[in-house]
Amino acid sequence: MPRRLPTVSDVARAAGVSRQTVSNVLNSPEIVREATRDRVTAAVAELGYRPHASARRLRTRRASTIAVRLDPFAGGISGAVLDRFLHALTERAEARGLTVMLYTATDAGDEIRQFQRLVDGAVVDAFVLASTYSGDPRTEWLIEHGHPFVTFGRPWGIPELDDPQHFWVDVDGRAGVAEAVRRLRASGARRVGFLGWPAGSGTGDERRAGWAAALAEAGVDAGERALLTVDAEESVAAARAAAKRLLGQASDLDAIVAASDTLALGALIATGGALRVVGFDNTPVAEAIGFSSIDQRVDEVAAAALELLDLVGRSEAGDPRSHRLITPDVIMRTPGPALGLVG
Amino acid sequence: MPRRLPTVSDVARAAGVSRQTVSNVLNSPEIVREATRDRVTAAVAELGYRPHASARRLRTRRASTIAVRLDPFAGGISGAVLDRFLHALTERAEARGLTVMLYTATDAGDEIRQFQRLVDGAVVDAFVLASTYSGDPRTEWLIEHGHPFVTFGRPWGIPELDDPQHFWVDVDGRAGVAEAVRRLRASGARRVGFLGWPAGSGTGDERRAGWAAALAEAGVDAGERALLTVDAEESVAAARAAAKRLLGQASDLDAIVAASDTLALGALIATGGALRVVGFDNTPVAEAIGFSSIDQRVDEVAAAALELLDLVGRSEAGDPRSHRLITPDVIMRTPGPALGLVG
Repeated sequence: MPRRLPTVSDVARAAGVSRQTVSNVLNSPEIVREATRDRVTAAVAELGYRPHASARRLRTRRASTIAVRLDPFAGGISGAVLDRFLHALTERAEARGLTVMLYTATDAGDEIRQFQRLVDGAVVDAFVLASTYSGDPRTEWLIEHGHPFVTFGRPWGIPELDDPQHFWVDVDGRAGVAEAVRRLRASGARRVGFLGWPAGSGTGDERRAGWAAALAEAGVDAGERALLTVDAEESVAAARAAAKRLLGQASDLDAIVAASDTLALGALIATGGALRVVGFDNTPVAEAIGFSSIDQRVDEVAAAALELLDLVGRSEAGDPRSHRLITPDVIMRTPGPALGLVG
Repeated sequence: MPRRLPTVSDVARAAGVSRQTVSNVLNSPEIVREATRDRVTAAVAELGYRPHASARRLRTRRASTIAVRLDPFAGGISGAVLDRFLHALTERAEARGLTVMLYTATDAGDEIRQFQRLVDGAVVDAFVLASTYSGDPRTEWLIEHGHPFVTFGRPWGIPELDDPQHFWVDVDGRAGVAEAVRRLRASGARRVGFLGWPAGSGTGDERRAGWAAALAEAGVDAGERALLTVDAEESVAAARAAAKRLLGQASDLDAIVAASDTLALGALIATGGALRVVGFDNTPVAEAIGFSSIDQRVDEVAAAALELLDLVGRSEAGDPRSHRLITPDVIMRTPGPALGLVG
């Protein structure tokens, strides 16, 4: 095994604690029990661990090539968001003298092998990852091996949200959906339903939480809210069927907010265009058909990701600037006479 | 200026003829007048020109990184095609051990400066260009400087279509549109109109020519055809207005074939879903709304582009394998009860 600098994971292993605990000892020692603190401090000294040692390397030799994964085209409506992000990232990277290189991967394990290949070949200096998920082994590996990266997507395990080694930018779906609900209500919609993905995806749960929070603000209690939401997998047909179920259990609905434009289109078809529908991602489909949608502002996301890459290795541990939460735009469209839908 | 190998352009300049003439002398000497042939042969000898000398370099040092331009996201419906091409190219490139690198450019001059930068930095071995147009200075520059490239899009100056130094793959829009017209007629549509772009774009003119050829086959004469087609710029609103004009001049229309999905959507709205409409590009919008469209088969295009890159430097001058014309798929969709449009 090649000689490498010790990482926070090495310290955690040596001290028999979690990475988070090591991070706490380094950043907020007062919240850690003394015995644990001593064990971690001893391990740090023994291994010669220096926070951000590998990242500091980047300070002198600035990254010039960043790698981004590009998946095979899967069809459907919502993939457009990651393509828009790639366009924005490429444009802004070039303005900073950086080059974007693409790779593909069949799964997380394969992606980690690609990291190794790209790093071994000295082809790539940093990674920008999208579509993070709970327990994502890719970010663990990059942290472990000290390679600079930024994710579009927060770390979905709650205790790691403030991990000082994980730089991330994300879009505040909760705030975006809550704002859409408030605007629908302000324009006269009394009962606003939510068509979401099945519970368990961080992104989807956040979006539903935004809807629930806005209704709670308006005095709609949990029992009532339970009648106003249904789930569907990401397909127009599933969304259409789910929206019909929703109308069955809440016939006096005025509007529906959906977790994606795909789900929104299903809801529009099911309701025959009679209800106001707000989607998520502001895809070309929403624009073409003319329904409202929440825009992720991927241009801001790309700008923030590159700023964060600049900070990797320069910020101190626990630097609040290592995370960015972008508030999305709610794009309200009034369905014109041009296009109605009959379900 | 750095010492470089003579190119076909140097020979053309020295002999006072066009590049095409040089190419003819090399490939089909019998079609060139003797005096011209002698001048070209003398210039070839004097300069020490060897066909494909620079490309031959590639034979030993195989390209491992290919550069592709990625433009800022422009919104709209049809941009999805180039994104799909990039996905397919990245996936297939990786399977061949190649890496895709992205760059941006504000115009052709800027793009040529980028070529120079990427070549000087030894970052890139070959280029894949999309969106070629008549008199494209980018391909001229690449040929002149002996850098391997393939275009998605034929060279739109007719005399250069068989340029042995320009490797290209393109989609046969003419054949695709003609096939769509034939299938509409076979399923009972008697009068099939065409909603195209204003004359002058090679791609658009080819698509209109396919429609005209299929109608001519069916005995519709030029005078009648003139009433069955109108132009619109690439926007839903312009297409909608143009489709209304078309209905005004040909009220007994049964179907419309459009040069793009954007134009098709405008036609669908204008006709209130009463006519059959076929678009071009089979975008997510066509899929979501459920109208027919012609699919460019970008996966085949990507595969062909990489095969051609492999051939650059190995094929003999005039090798017919240096060009590929892919026949697109006509995807016929019957508008379901799910979604009607009211104009």
